[in-house]
Amino acid sequence: MRLPVELAHAYRLLNHGPTTLISAAHGGVQNVMAAAWVMPLDFEPPKVLAVIDKQSFTRSLIDASGEFALSLPSRELAAATVNAGSSSGRDGDKFASSGLQPFKAQEIAAPLIDGCLAWLECRVIAEPANQQRYDLFIAEVVAAWADSSVFADGHWLMAPDTRHTIHYVAGGRFFETGAAFDV
Amino acid sequence: MRLPVELAHAYRLLNHGPTTLISAAHGGVQNVMAAAWVMPLDFEPPKVLAVIDKQSFTRSLIDASGEFALSLPSRELAAATVNAGSSSGRDGDKFASSGLQPFKAQEIAAPLIDGCLAWLECRVIAEPANQQRYDLFIAEVVAAWADSSVFADGHWLMAPDTRHTIHYVAGGRFFETGAAFDV
Repeated sequence: MRLPVELAHAYRLLNHGPTTLISAAHGGVQNVMAAAWVMPLDFEPPKVLAVIDKQSFTRSLIDASGEFALSLPSRELAAATVNAGSSSGRDGDKFASSGLQPFKAQEIAAPLIDGCLAWLECRVIAEPANQQRYDLFIAEVVAAWADSSVFADGHWLMAPDTRHTIHYVAGGRFFETGAAFDV
Repeated sequence: MRLPVELAHAYRLLNHGPTTLISAAHGGVQNVMAAAWVMPLDFEPPKVLAVIDKQSFTRSLIDASGEFALSLPSRELAAATVNAGSSSGRDGDKFASSGLQPFKAQEIAAPLIDGCLAWLECRVIAEPANQQRYDLFIAEVVAAWADSSVFADGHWLMAPDTRHTIHYVAGGRFFETGAAFDV
């Protein structure tokens, strides 16, 4: 079941460095891309950093709308994630070609991606120099959600029998998030 | 054995979001801190992003020297990593208190941390507005290294019988990097 995550805990969804899907919408058009270069920037209000190539179609939708969503796929969506990272929405509807299914967010127009483990709804904080020079976006998290089978009461569960987040390296290779341990 | 990593492959050391140790030196003083908010920003020349709190002693050494090193600990160093993240070098020599052992880098004065899996030597690209407003550093990777038992020929090995990188969440809880899979 998809449940809200307290904004003060939103950083915990990204703190361990999972691969994300970035989605955006503008003027009735929506798109999704894969992004490994996403991480927290601040706790409260929660902010995130995302590197979003100015060549990408999703980037043009973010530039126009000032919003994007992050969705965290599990291994079940890894092939679709690679597909979303290696094709362009300029060449056709990427939701149709990747098999990823959008659904409506609460606070922003950008869609969330069905079947993921967690979701962050983000509003861009305008920093034109970073965006132009480094393709670097700073955004405030305005809503966050997680599947209660993997994240509950502010903590990732990710047990051997639940789905896990995934971590992309290169060349189609991922690592699954492994076993938890405490210090 | 510690071997050089081609700069074009340096991003792969961080792409999966491992927790890092950030070390710095200036004027004969050196320090180390834990940092989960570190990721790649660009491929070649490789650049990284790191969020480094202006309250931290390590930050003052980075501000003064314009350099820092990233070292990637495994589970064997997780307790020392938490220690390095919860004490301050202002209160005494953190290398003595954490058990972490520094050794000399090649291109920068900041030390690398012994027993880690990989290392990146970084020179800060001056972006004063980001540094002041967001505690956000952009740096170029000028040398990179990895232990050949876990990273070789540009690829992480991380097999069941080798050491793995680790991913911090909160409250002393980490995830180990789990099983690899290909799409």
